[in-house]
Amino acid sequence: MQIAMVVYDRFTALDVVGPYETLSRLPGARVDFVAEQAGPVRADTGFLAVTADKALGELPHPDIVVVAGGPGTFTQIENGALLDWLRAVDATTTWTTSVCSGSLLLAAAGLLEGRRATSHWLTLDFLKQYGAEPTGERVVTDGKYLTAAGVSSGIDMGLTLVGRIAGDEHAQAVQLLTEYDPQPPYDAGSPEKAPAHLVEEFRTNSRFSLV
Amino acid sequence: MQIAMVVYDRFTALDVVGPYETLSRLPGARVDFVAEQAGPVRADTGFLAVTADKALGELPHPDIVVVAGGPGTFTQIENGALLDWLRAVDATTTWTTSVCSGSLLLAAAGLLEGRRATSHWLTLDFLKQYGAEPTGERVVTDGKYLTAAGVSSGIDMGLTLVGRIAGDEHAQAVQLLTEYDPQPPYDAGSPEKAPAHLVEEFRTNSRFSLV
Repeated sequence: MQIAMVVYDRFTALDVVGPYETLSRLPGARVDFVAEQAGPVRADTGFLAVTADKALGELPHPDIVVVAGGPGTFTQIENGALLDWLRAVDATTTWTTSVCSGSLLLAAAGLLEGRRATSHWLTLDFLKQYGAEPTGERVVTDGKYLTAAGVSSGIDMGLTLVGRIAGDEHAQAVQLLTEYDPQPPYDAGSPEKAPAHLVEEFRTNSRFSLV
Repeated sequence: MQIAMVVYDRFTALDVVGPYETLSRLPGARVDFVAEQAGPVRADTGFLAVTADKALGELPHPDIVVVAGGPGTFTQIENGALLDWLRAVDATTTWTTSVCSGSLLLAAAGLLEGRRATSHWLTLDFLKQYGAEPTGERVVTDGKYLTAAGVSSGIDMGLTLVGRIAGDEHAQAVQLLTEYDPQPPYDAGSPEKAPAHLVEEFRTNSRFSLV
């Protein structure tokens, strides 16, 4: 089972490493990090680089595609080569998936038209522009399309997909191995739960440079 | 603020990317992935490589050290160069931390003697050999030493440390940005919660190759 993890300049690291940590433990998994060109690809903060072992063109028939999000999404949304590749591989994937703003790339490729999908809470509304139906759920399954909300939600998506493919018991084993028994020290992980002024600061982009 | 993320052959990817995603968003953070030699370093499943931009010797005075765990720990525990570096930098760090079996490296370097510490549930008991006091908690703080349990617990540790350094509000902002509102599809993330036969399978190392 070939799994393509799609990265690009200024992707968000946890978007892709969350599902990687779970999906790479599927029986018979072979995972390839892939980018437009092979070589090191820098994450959004500029510090972490992961190696894309293959260029997109070297991976024509992955079984599973996972598209990362991140500030770089808004550049990639204009990248015809990437969108063409997504359309082409989607013709033969068993699962086409995304984390965070990565769903905008699936949507821009025309793959989510008329489908329910999610995204980072800050980019959720953009899905409508491409004919997808945004929902605020953390993990959304519509046919063979799985989309996850922001950043850390890719862990939940990966575990969900492991269960679908290899059964509940294997997914539980992966959860136990990765000791995924979350105990966040705060309860501010969604716009509904976080202090309202923080949500507003993000919407006006004043606290972090997001793009 | 200089943050060293310590990796080595067969580290576990999420161990280091979890805290990276949170700590890299501290005000003034500069994060360096560091290994014995600079260059690509492969994670335990063999698929993901991250770039160590610096060799250990090039980073003599990090403010924060984060040591990843993974199957490679048991090789590194004999690596005098790494243990020497850990001892040397610990003399001037403000925080010395680990995720998963990474705590065994801190312990082997003599840094956790007489201290409360945690580790992956499968490696917790090894801490005693080095004079540390193991506890099954997910994140343990003892003085300037923070240790986290298995793999995904590094996210909770990172967020805890962001709160200690930059205040609760900044940590909440990071939690909101990373949409860390976990909703695992199963409840098997600790040996107390998982089916007993899975715990036993791991203890006898029959389901996954862990080392």
